[in-house]
Amino acid sequence: MPSPAKLSAKPARKASRKSLARATARSFSIEVKPTRGSAELLLAATASLLSERPDMAASFRDIEKRSGLNSALIKYYFGNKEGLLMALLERDAKLEMDALRHLVATAGLSAAEKLRIHITGILNAFYKSPYLNSLIHHMIDNASERSRKLLKKVYIDPMVEAYRQIVAQGVAEGAFRSVNAEMLYCSLVGSCDYLFSSASIVPQMLNEARITEELKQRYIAHVVDMTLFGMRK
Amino acid sequence: MPSPAKLSAKPARKASRKSLARATARSFSIEVKPTRGSAELLLAATASLLSERPDMAASFRDIEKRSGLNSALIKYYFGNKEGLLMALLERDAKLEMDALRHLVATAGLSAAEKLRIHITGILNAFYKSPYLNSLIHHMIDNASERSRKLLKKVYIDPMVEAYRQIVAQGVAEGAFRSVNAEMLYCSLVGSCDYLFSSASIVPQMLNEARITEELKQRYIAHVVDMTLFGMRK
Repeated sequence: MPSPAKLSAKPARKASRKSLARATARSFSIEVKPTRGSAELLLAATASLLSERPDMAASFRDIEKRSGLNSALIKYYFGNKEGLLMALLERDAKLEMDALRHLVATAGLSAAEKLRIHITGILNAFYKSPYLNSLIHHMIDNASERSRKLLKKVYIDPMVEAYRQIVAQGVAEGAFRSVNAEMLYCSLVGSCDYLFSSASIVPQMLNEARITEELKQRYIAHVVDMTLFGMRK
Repeated sequence: MPSPAKLSAKPARKASRKSLARATARSFSIEVKPTRGSAELLLAATASLLSERPDMAASFRDIEKRSGLNSALIKYYFGNKEGLLMALLERDAKLEMDALRHLVATAGLSAAEKLRIHITGILNAFYKSPYLNSLIHHMIDNASERSRKLLKKVYIDPMVEAYRQIVAQGVAEGAFRSVNAEMLYCSLVGSCDYLFSSASIVPQMLNEARITEELKQRYIAHVVDMTLFGMRK
């Protein structure tokens, strides 16, 4: 099976790029012209479709329509659907993790302030990109061992490392208890996740038709308080 | 569609119990003899199967084999697979919620102590009954509106009500901040849920092959501390 494509959107099989493109084009009886930016466009079209379909049911045909590009290019760049979805996760992870690394390295911010900004960021990301959370769950449940390892590498490991550094800073500031970073990842991401992964039942419980901006803001304040008070020394 | 059966394991359509039994027996060309306890046996067989298959893929045929009862009885008692799964959730919810109501009503226990016992109980239940968490997710994602409402009624509403009472007690004791019960439900159950719903990736992150008793104990201590410190006044 082709390896999941990297964020740089290199073709799925570097070594045989041209031959694969030709073979793919032949098998689809169409002209495939990989151009600069077409991988990014396929990812953007997929993200757009998944935002409307949280069941991850976007087909190659749907992506072809939305992007205006021939779906044979998906095979060319990403190998298969799993490769495409992993590339989308990697694209989004890179943005989030770059921001997180920057936040952790920022001088003049307390550990508590960093954690507050980070929690706000997670919940805003899940709210803005409704597909993100479902996609992570979908990949954890259905992806190959290889993709799961990649998911751990691009999402989980950087977050756990950030938590380790923020906790160490907070302990040094005399503000935080020494909390295990992996355990903190699990409880905090679990809290953030639940509002969205159970989106079909939580708003009903809260007597809302859907997750509104106001509900999200109230939840941010709640999770920030629970976490920061929970870590207090 | 027949309504999901109640815990008391009354037949799916009370009014036409005999005629339904006869019709079901005819359509399966077998003798169906509902006997005292056979509904409970079907639920126990389903729970046993689901513990081995977290994808909820237990078929009527599997349940027939495991229970030694004819699968036509499933239709008789529970209407269909959704009715059967909801009846199983109701059975388990009744046990958990009776214990929770008892805990909340216990005199001489502080609110903090009640919350500690409750959190330990949730994580132990998910650990002991691996199907429970998957089944709740499966029903939230796939069940009819009617079953989702029932799930809210038997699981979520009693827990939120218990949290409301525990928070009120803790505030009266001068120990807790006033925390919204629905928000607490979402963040706390989310934290408990995450270790198990992402079972395929979290142990890997923690460098464990699976969720061990020791890992569960460490996580209980972590979630209890985060929650109780998080609620401190």
